[in-house]
This record gives sequence, structure tokens and C-alpha cells, in this order.
Amino acid sequence: MKDLALHMWATPNSRRVSILFEELGLDFDVRPVNIRAGQQFDPAVLALNPFGKVPIAVWQDGTKQRVLSESGAILLHFAESDCRFLPATGADRDKTLMWLMIVLTALGPHSSQAHHWSELTTEPSEPALAHHRELVKRVYRLLNDQLKDRAYLAADYSIADIAAYPWIDLSHWTTLDIKDYPNLDAWRQNISARPAVVRGMALPVGATLD
Amino acid sequence: MKDLALHMWATPNSRRVSILFEELGLDFDVRPVNIRAGQQFDPAVLALNPFGKVPIAVWQDGTKQRVLSESGAILLHFAESDCRFLPATGADRDKTLMWLMIVLTALGPHSSQAHHWSELTTEPSEPALAHHRELVKRVYRLLNDQLKDRAYLAADYSIADIAAYPWIDLSHWTTLDIKDYPNLDAWRQNISARPAVVRGMALPVGATLD
Repeated sequence: MKDLALHMWATPNSRRVSILFEELGLDFDVRPVNIRAGQQFDPAVLALNPFGKVPIAVWQDGTKQRVLSESGAILLHFAESDCRFLPATGADRDKTLMWLMIVLTALGPHSSQAHHWSELTTEPSEPALAHHRELVKRVYRLLNDQLKDRAYLAADYSIADIAAYPWIDLSHWTTLDIKDYPNLDAWRQNISARPAVVRGMALPVGATLD
Repeated sequence: MKDLALHMWATPNSRRVSILFEELGLDFDVRPVNIRAGQQFDPAVLALNPFGKVPIAVWQDGTKQRVLSESGAILLHFAESDCRFLPATGADRDKTLMWLMIVLTALGPHSSQAHHWSELTTEPSEPALAHHRELVKRVYRLLNDQLKDRAYLAADYSIADIAAYPWIDLSHWTTLDIKDYPNLDAWRQNISARPAVVRGMALPVGATLD
């Protein structure tokens, strides 16, 4: 058993964290939590996160066990151990945090709701799908504009890109066509070729959302 | 003209920042941006934030002007100048970031969508209102459970409470009754009595969302 474990499934929010762990070269165990089978509500998982969501990171800090949920908090915690994916100070740190927040509070929630109304719901609503699709469009346009003359969202490759990538990889969930956002699509292809991204996106082994 | 300005309106996301600035005792100018009049899309505002949203903080850093949008990024930047509302390290920092993320990525977006479907939309959808109301309920229950034996969401009064308060103050937007969440309601009353919260919630002077 390793000193670091990641409770996760094949979800965009989980894979943000597995990608960062791979980028940082951390040695970690994967604990699959099949959300399509409702395992996030198993008592053992709820004991770690009463919100009933993955990802959850669990690690040893001396003799104490530390538990942390919320992908954004996990990214900040582990990125702060190292300056490669989040600058420690200054304007570049601020810009990284700003783009991270756009991804965490707009790209993720809006894409998730568009997916709900496009595929998951048992009570379809045309106005709801149209509304949430428009909210995703507004974020896609913003990201596409930001990537016009840049390889990454903030100063350099960072947790903002890492947090965004798994959601952009699932752009079909939103019913939008990524080809309509050429800078974002080029960024997607560039990020997808990183070895750590390939490894992080393949976890948990064999897991799917089908 | 002061060295720090906050472009804001009477919105929950803006008031998170005005509350923190008041708690920190910062001297700042308020620049009203009436979002009901569409002023967030004025060219001068879009030049500061192409996403067309408030709040936006603008300040002098030596000879350079710094600009930062996204309420979560502004809270982190200014809270990190001081350990009172965000511990610098350790498990308490992690817990504060975790609750901040729950507030930024779930409480805020879900409350905002419930408000859209309860009041703002011109294309009402019963399934959409019911769905987003359930998402808010799930967060309210989580916050209410967390506040069972605690005065604050994380270790001590923090940016997690500051980020949550303006949304809980507008609980009627979600069509839920805050009285059904007694711990959350007691927390709300406690926070509402803080002098800095009273001052922050009164900005911009005379602004309303009616």
C-alpha cells in the first residue's frame, strides 16, 4: 500500500487530479469508485467525503492520515508543493488562479449541466438544454480567444490547463463541435500528447462512463 | 483616487470581495458596474475582463497596474496577504480550500441556476427548476450538517464563509426556505452581524438587482 491514494472514476473532475499526480511523478494507488453504480454513496466513501463525490485524495502526513476532496482543492494542495504548475507568487500566480477559477466554476459546471440536459435526464427540457449550451458556448469562446496567440491558458502549462483538459476532451457531452473553436481544438491536441496526460486519462484502468 | 479599486455590483460574487476587503481593512474605491443595465459589456469593462463579469479588482503594484477577475481568484490573492482568513499551510488550509471550492463550484453555480429558472428566464421549464433546486438542496444539506457543532465552515472564520454568505443571504432566489436548515440559518445570522459584512453588503451604495 502506497502513502498516497486517489479515489476516482473515469470522470473529468477525477482525471484532473490523476493527470496532475502523473505530471508531478507521484507514486499513488488508484481506488476505483464507480459512480454509475452509485459507489460514491457507499458508507466507506461517504465517511471520506459526505458530499458523495470523487475525487478524494488520502495520504499519510507523519502519523496522521489526511483526506481531501474537491478537485480544485486537491490541485491547489499538490501544485503548491512544487512551482512547476502553479507559480508561487506574483502576477503569473494570479493569472493561473484566475483561469483555474473560470475552469472550475464555469467550464466544469456548465458542461456538466449541458451533459445532464443532452444525455442524462429522464425529463428532457428544450429550454434547459438551449440555456446551458449557451453558457458553455460563452466559456468556449473565451478560452478560444485566450488561446489565439498562446499555447496555454495562463503564463505556462499549469493546473488551469490540467483542470480544463478532461472537460474539453468530452466536448461532445455539450453537443457543441470543438472544431468550431480552432484554437481550443489545437490546445486540446497539444495537451493530449503529453505522456502524463495520456497516463492520467487512462485511470482507473478499464473504467468507463457508459 | 486610491491604489485599489473594485468594479462591482450588488451581486453575491461581487460582495464576497467587498466583504473580504472590509474584513482586511483595505482602503478601496468602488466602481459600480450595473449588470442589470448591461454595463459589464461596456468596452472599458470588457478591456479589464473579456468574460464580461464582475467583480474585477484593479490595483497598483509599484509602477504596474494589476487587474484580476473571478471572485475566487481575488479572494485567494488578498487572503494570502494575511493569515487571518486563510491559513498559510497545513490541514486547516486544505479544509478552508475544500469548503471554498464547494461554495465556488456548487453553492454559487447551483443557486445562480435555480434563480435563473425561478425568476429570470423568459422560457420557464418545470424540470429545469426542479433539477437545479435539488442541486441546491444537496449543498444546503451538506453545509447544514457541517455547521451542526461548528460556528464556521472550516477551522475558523475564513474566505469559505465569506464566499458563501452573500449566496445564503439570497436563499429566497432558490425557492428554498432557509428555516429548513437551522444550522445554516444560525450561521447566516451570526455572519450577518459582523461589522465588515454589514459594510461589504451595503456596496455599491444604492445598487440593487431589482
